[in-house]
Amino acid sequence: MVRWQPDSRGRLEQAALALYGERGFENTTVAEIAERAGLTERTFFRHFADKREVLFGGAGLLQGLMVSAVAGAPATAAPIDAVMAALTAAGNLLQQRRDFARQRHAVIVANAELRERELIKMATLASALADALRGRGVTDPAASLTAEAGVAVFRVAFERWVEAADPSDLPSVMRSSFDELKAVTAGE
Amino acid sequence: MVRWQPDSRGRLEQAALALYGERGFENTTVAEIAERAGLTERTFFRHFADKREVLFGGAGLLQGLMVSAVAGAPATAAPIDAVMAALTAAGNLLQQRRDFARQRHAVIVANAELRERELIKMATLASALADALRGRGVTDPAASLTAEAGVAVFRVAFERWVEAADPSDLPSVMRSSFDELKAVTAGE
Repeated sequence: MVRWQPDSRGRLEQAALALYGERGFENTTVAEIAERAGLTERTFFRHFADKREVLFGGAGLLQGLMVSAVAGAPATAAPIDAVMAALTAAGNLLQQRRDFARQRHAVIVANAELRERELIKMATLASALADALRGRGVTDPAASLTAEAGVAVFRVAFERWVEAADPSDLPSVMRSSFDELKAVTAGE
Repeated sequence: MVRWQPDSRGRLEQAALALYGERGFENTTVAEIAERAGLTERTFFRHFADKREVLFGGAGLLQGLMVSAVAGAPATAAPIDAVMAALTAAGNLLQQRRDFARQRHAVIVANAELRERELIKMATLASALADALRGRGVTDPAASLTAEAGVAVFRVAFERWVEAADPSDLPSVMRSSFDELKAVTAGE
């Protein structure tokens, strides 16, 4: 029986997340990741700049996808609907990688430096979404507030989904979290 | 004519902010701050652990004030109104120190490490407000979403106020930013 072998990048990712989970991010070396994956350090560095990039290398892709969804929403869509389209796109992408998302989340929660890095990623995402809204002619403060509200929904929904034993699909959790935000801001 | 001399802590703050503005946070030493204030380094370290604490030493006070406002809101107040009470309390405090707030903001915007520290401060504030709401019996995800929405309004309102040449008072800017958030989440 031939066992399926993921590509080098995927094998390095799996090995890194397993090791970060077992012994902590700070106690794992690139040499150990490469060894666990049955690859060389040189191969590791062809895919990732450092061991942190295993966790954050996908941020650019996610942000690009979300910005495109805002830009590509129908011209008649309200700003919040353009942002919801971005959240749905992100939800569909992350939904396909739930195991990775869960492992990654556990590693980040356990490490202060990684939690800070995640905050910076989210702030960068909020700025990029606000810029995309301005590109649609939305003025400030509506552009910033809509983007910040969108990122708040994203974070809260993602945490619910990633921590739930048997969650609904992420785009649905995003939608219900958004409805909840609407209800709380309306004073309900 | 006797010139009014603020207390040592105030003089150190003024000297630090002036120097951070003139030559950058990273290029200013504690020795220079003390010299500019006409005080000793020892006096500086009686008031601040390091030069960064001149900028972040007030975070605990601000957060404490906001958490108390959430806890002390009438039992009948909706969660978002409890958070708005916290924003108003913060607005009244910061309003009295607009010059400090402006100088501090300019220094933080110019330095990546300080921007990160400010993000952490805001995330810590959001967690503290969510905890205060849970203390009022608000369940999740409403508690997290309300707290995140409140911090989004705080940040956007604070930036508008601190960057405006001739702004309205900060509590009013908070209130109008909140009305704007309500409008954008309602899809207007």
